[in-house]
Amino acid sequence: MFTTVLTRGPVVRPEIARITGLSSAAVTKAVKPMIEAGYLAELTQSVRAAEGAGRPAYPLAIRADREFFVGVKVTADELIGVITDLRAEVRAASRMPVSGRSVEQVVADVAALVAELTPQFADRIHHVGVSVSGDVDRPGGLVRYSPFLGWRDVALAELVGAATGLEVTVENDVKALTVAEQWFGEGVGADSFALATVGVGIGCGLVVNGRLVPGGYGVAGEIGHIPVAAGDGPTCHCGSRGCVEAIASEEAIVARAREAAGDPGLDMAGAILRAHDGDAAVRAVFAEAGQAIGLGLAAMVNLVGPERVVVSGEGLAAYDLFEEQIRAAFSRQAFGAAERCPLVVRPLPWEEWARGAAAVSIQSLFAP
Amino acid sequence: MFTTVLTRGPVVRPEIARITGLSSAAVTKAVKPMIEAGYLAELTQSVRAAEGAGRPAYPLAIRADREFFVGVKVTADELIGVITDLRAEVRAASRMPVSGRSVEQVVADVAALVAELTPQFADRIHHVGVSVSGDVDRPGGLVRYSPFLGWRDVALAELVGAATGLEVTVENDVKALTVAEQWFGEGVGADSFALATVGVGIGCGLVVNGRLVPGGYGVAGEIGHIPVAAGDGPTCHCGSRGCVEAIASEEAIVARAREAAGDPGLDMAGAILRAHDGDAAVRAVFAEAGQAIGLGLAAMVNLVGPERVVVSGEGLAAYDLFEEQIRAAFSRQAFGAAERCPLVVRPLPWEEWARGAAAVSIQSLFAP
Ligand SMILES: [Zn+2]
Ligand SMILES: [Zn+2]
Repeated sequence: MFTTVLTRGPVVRPEIARITGLSSAAVTKAVKPMIEAGYLAELTQSVRAAEGAGRPAYPLAIRADREFFVGVKVTADELIGVITDLRAEVRAASRMPVSGRSVEQVVADVAALVAELTPQFADRIHHVGVSVSGDVDRPGGLVRYSPFLGWRDVALAELVGAATGLEVTVENDVKALTVAEQWFGEGVGADSFALATVGVGIGCGLVVNGRLVPGGYGVAGEIGHIPVAAGDGPTCHCGSRGCVEAIASEEAIVARAREAAGDPGLDMAGAILRAHDGDAAVRAVFAEAGQAIGLGLAAMVNLVGPERVVVSGEGLAAYDLFEEQIRAAFSRQAFGAAERCPLVVRPLPWEEWARGAAAVSIQSLFAP
Repeated sequence: MFTTVLTRGPVVRPEIARITGLSSAAVTKAVKPMIEAGYLAELTQSVRAAEGAGRPAYPLAIRADREFFVGVKVTADELIGVITDLRAEVRAASRMPVSGRSVEQVVADVAALVAELTPQFADRIHHVGVSVSGDVDRPGGLVRYSPFLGWRDVALAELVGAATGLEVTVENDVKALTVAEQWFGEGVGADSFALATVGVGIGCGLVVNGRLVPGGYGVAGEIGHIPVAAGDGPTCHCGSRGCVEAIASEEAIVARAREAAGDPGLDMAGAILRAHDGDAAVRAVFAEAGQAIGLGLAAMVNLVGPERVVVSGEGLAAYDLFEEQIRAAFSRQAFGAAERCPLVVRPLPWEEWARGAAAVSIQSLFAP
């Protein structure tokens, strides 16, 4: 209901009923407390129903300024924070290096970032969303396992709540991005879609049958641990070998590029430079990464059948070095009509990740 | 609504309301035409609500004999047919070799099998479900592509309808099995589960967020075309290489066992015999197949996160030869908590496939 108004802009009640499949009585009933609480406003300008007949209808619109939300993405080195309105439009943003990776340090840093961001919105901010890569139990407010931070079973929602005085929702970072896409982006109205991220990790958020895929055991969308070279591939931090992430994550690319170039000091920027300069061995490293990503995407599409795949992530800085291989491997491996699934490539600044965390806290408010 | 009564047995209206989340008024409204049409009967023995208070309630039960359904599974060599009641209980079964693989021959054979099965239920049979492996467009009644039959774009529902005078639903065979499992088996009440089949092909039906995963382009659950050995694996009939199916399908196992044993006349039964006799090279072929299946299952579980996986199919005749490898590869590759997902192994006689086709025709009647 709420998403209908959120994503279509001002909309009349009969239209809401048509889109949601609810009766008009049910729509009126659902809308009333949201108007009373100030989240929705009835516009005073009436619109006559398209069919001509009937009473004049007053469109409902989101009052985007009614409440603001903080979103914080936690990485191993840095926090990225944003303030958004009710439509998940970013109103302010800030970054802060983490003072350390211990739970205490990160919680204190998050509280400091929130304190820096919130003053001008203070009386209208009650919720913060925090996103972290790894295995997150959203209902329990728990980071079960974060490889990059080295955390296990951290009650992050409770700790950040105590430090900030706000309502806290924690979510896996890729799932949070997927929620933002589903509620406020390309996923609106789609029965199924996938959001794949390429960078430090290779992740994927999935929406199937109109809802986020939660994973029966909290694990889903782990495209990074599809074994595309189980026999002869490199070992992976998950304990297996030949995983997409063991070939195509930033760390894997840098490690393989160092070896290819015989330069143990090479970093990602240097590897990209060398590849652009025509170093064949380093170019091959990117090409193999692209092939692994394309195979992983095809395996996912063969299994889950999304209507479209958005490919994003900080790893796209090197996209020109592996796009061709991604697309070629995808086309070869996609089964039958699955090849028609479009791969939409989109850059994704870090602030988008933080916006995802804010979107999750908006969702928690309206669809707890 | 219907599935609630189907799967829980006699159940009172307030219980239906609780399970479905519908209001009691909505339940009463939904139930009325089904009672009038004779699908549901109100039992005369009343049950007092557990809480003690309230009016006595009369449980509703399915009248399983109200209508019967034909299910036919089409394979490349044989048709398997069953008659089921409304609860998908098999009441009669029969098999028939196909007289050929042309569309005309198969349609005529299906009509002959239906004619053989239906006489004793004739006036209460109006629906037949037909299942075929490959790419099937159920709403369109179309077999888009069946590799085993060599068919493309065959309007099978229309043709079988004309030949039998019955309402026809066609569906992919693995999806049909999954529907049977969801409506009448282990999947009842599960938010997510997977049914993997091992044999001539390696397939998988998925239920996510309570519904079958249809695939945005009609393709989903293609676990057989996950590339687990993209670099050094054998070529696959899909045009790619290193797919699970290229290593672990019956055809692949036989081909590799022939080579390993140096016996070009070896068939599946012979390969199993040799492996049981301790032929190390042939045992290795089964072990590799088991490893590929386990990796494919883990990739699927990592992506989709089912609560449980039922592993089934005619290939389980050799299960003792690869179970250990399936489980070991699954455990190694499953990511984090996904390892807790149980693999439930169950033999699956051919008649179960035909029952799946019948279940699809029951579903078409009640949830078109
Ligand atoms: Zn891995
Ligand atoms: Zn294949």
